[in-house]
Amino acid sequence: MQKRAHLRKRLSELKLDGFMVSNLTNVRYLSGFTGSSGFLIIAKKKSVFVTDFRYKEQAHHEVQGCIIRISRRERMKEIRDICNEYGIKKLGFEEDAVSYGEYRKLFRTKIRLRPLSGEIETLRIIKTKDEIASIKKAVSRAEAAFRKLQPHMKEGATELKIALKFEELIKAEGCKLLPFGVIVASGSMSALPHAKPTGRRLKKGDLVVFDWGGECNGYFSDMTRTVLLNGRNIARQKKLYYTVLNAQKRAISTVRSGLKTAIVDAAARDYIEQQGYGDHFGHGTGHGVGLAVHERPVVSWRNKEVIKNNMVFTIEPGIYIPGFGGVRIEDMIIVRQRRAELLTSLPKRLKVIG
Amino acid sequence: MQKRAHLRKRLSELKLDGFMVSNLTNVRYLSGFTGSSGFLIIAKKKSVFVTDFRYKEQAHHEVQGCIIRISRRERMKEIRDICNEYGIKKLGFEEDAVSYGEYRKLFRTKIRLRPLSGEIETLRIIKTKDEIASIKKAVSRAEAAFRKLQPHMKEGATELKIALKFEELIKAEGCKLLPFGVIVASGSMSALPHAKPTGRRLKKGDLVVFDWGGECNGYFSDMTRTVLLNGRNIARQKKLYYTVLNAQKRAISTVRSGLKTAIVDAAARDYIEQQGYGDHFGHGTGHGVGLAVHERPVVSWRNKEVIKNNMVFTIEPGIYIPGFGGVRIEDMIIVRQRRAELLTSLPKRLKVIG
Repeated sequence: MQKRAHLRKRLSELKLDGFMVSNLTNVRYLSGFTGSSGFLIIAKKKSVFVTDFRYKEQAHHEVQGCIIRISRRERMKEIRDICNEYGIKKLGFEEDAVSYGEYRKLFRTKIRLRPLSGEIETLRIIKTKDEIASIKKAVSRAEAAFRKLQPHMKEGATELKIALKFEELIKAEGCKLLPFGVIVASGSMSALPHAKPTGRRLKKGDLVVFDWGGECNGYFSDMTRTVLLNGRNIARQKKLYYTVLNAQKRAISTVRSGLKTAIVDAAARDYIEQQGYGDHFGHGTGHGVGLAVHERPVVSWRNKEVIKNNMVFTIEPGIYIPGFGGVRIEDMIIVRQRRAELLTSLPKRLKVIG
Repeated sequence: MQKRAHLRKRLSELKLDGFMVSNLTNVRYLSGFTGSSGFLIIAKKKSVFVTDFRYKEQAHHEVQGCIIRISRRERMKEIRDICNEYGIKKLGFEEDAVSYGEYRKLFRTKIRLRPLSGEIETLRIIKTKDEIASIKKAVSRAEAAFRKLQPHMKEGATELKIALKFEELIKAEGCKLLPFGVIVASGSMSALPHAKPTGRRLKKGDLVVFDWGGECNGYFSDMTRTVLLNGRNIARQKKLYYTVLNAQKRAISTVRSGLKTAIVDAAARDYIEQQGYGDHFGHGTGHGVGLAVHERPVVSWRNKEVIKNNMVFTIEPGIYIPGFGGVRIEDMIIVRQRRAELLTSLPKRLKVIG
């Protein structure tokens, strides 16, 4: 597998005999395994995948090009034995995926250890053709579900009921799992960037934020649209909406390979500040999407990541006014020939319902 | 809050000035916060809860009796400042919830650190009245959904379609989230203890395993039933079913406070071995259920946990014959006045469909 070959190259650069991969998303990326318990040790010539009895058949179905070990024993004993069998004296491990408690146990095995950070995430950040195809399908499934949801977005319906219907529709499009519970946040609830759906009923003049994602082959999509329920005084809602939309478009047009993601963040943030809402946009402008719905690159003021071709990330500025409501608009883009290509195709003109 | 008071007592026993809680389930247990980013520092007199902008309103809604800090900064800087402000010189941390990478950063703050394991899990293992009420509701919601699913369990239906309907029904009962994607595994797929629903259609003679859970106030339930689609040669399926059922009943009747959970495991396992299926039951007999769907106590051959009143756990032996099929039957019990009281009320006589 190409991906494991990349990692083996790093092994020799780092003068390591093996690399233990325990972050499950990274395990999936490198082995194909989709279960929720298992780890991988990549030695110089062979790769060994370890899981327990529950995943025996699944591992044999899914895992390609690795020796599969089904273990009933403690993880540390298995690691020690594999290192002995495959001549691993110095083992790299993912310092963000191994807890301090596990580290202490590993330390007692006498294997020489080297903490590593971001090795596989650095590979994951650039998407292959197959990955892009899966992400596009995850986007189109999510979009189809949103279109079918339209008749359910109406005055009097509760957020919870709409959210339930929405999740049904997403799954009916073929998504085996959702990246997160869909957000349907109306009126004052829309001022909470991560609101959970409640029993609140949609009413006239409400801003309603929909934030959801789809899935295909384990790859996710993530998008947000905000709609407005018609009412008497909706000028402020419209103002908020178009401020966010302008900020979002500015950010998208800033994307080009070679720039830092912080510049994309600044494009949205500076505009929102100029419009007087600087205190009401507290989160980053975007994040990568792939096997994880939040992955690198981080698009934020505190990040130093450089944009490269075939990165996939979201652009999702928002403004949140406590007690009143909020607007967020989120697209996914892929960096192509130095520019952003939109993956999301849902329209962004303000949709006023009723 | 009673729970934080327990922990403060431990602080003084351990000669610590503060305890950092970063496992999110433990954070929820101690603070009420249900978001997905935040941590808690319990000092001798005050508790400080830290989250970021996204969860500002949510934190103020949910978190009781703590000072709430909304932070845009790196976690390590916040921890260092809180320790300075509240006079914490020696800080306990959860060694299984802090990665080695985070530990290295913490180490550089010069705060004296002490790794701790299982402190809060030990509190969580014994359920309070309120917790038991939520768990019971989570059970009854899950059971109601299963009853309503009956008309959809029929020859020709795909696992995926049934699973989708099942999840709809569970949510329609009021569960805000599911502890895990429901398992509907038929025929040879039922031999995979953690199978994901596929496009396979139910056919005559299939064993079909349903494993699912409900939720209430963040507390989960977890149960499994196996049904049989009528067919010509179903003697072997029936034999498997009643072997598992007998094993399960034996395990339940073994439960009493003061015994080790390993004895409950052995009751099921020894019976299955005697019947000649010893090689086909590879997982543990059960696990605790609460804010996490898998928590302590572990009911398995390698565990030394002692059963106590007001523990809640599952009892779920199974037999899995590769290429043929499997059976698992899972109930939840609570330990009451030294005996198991069943929380699950769905019947266990083999249901033969068609």
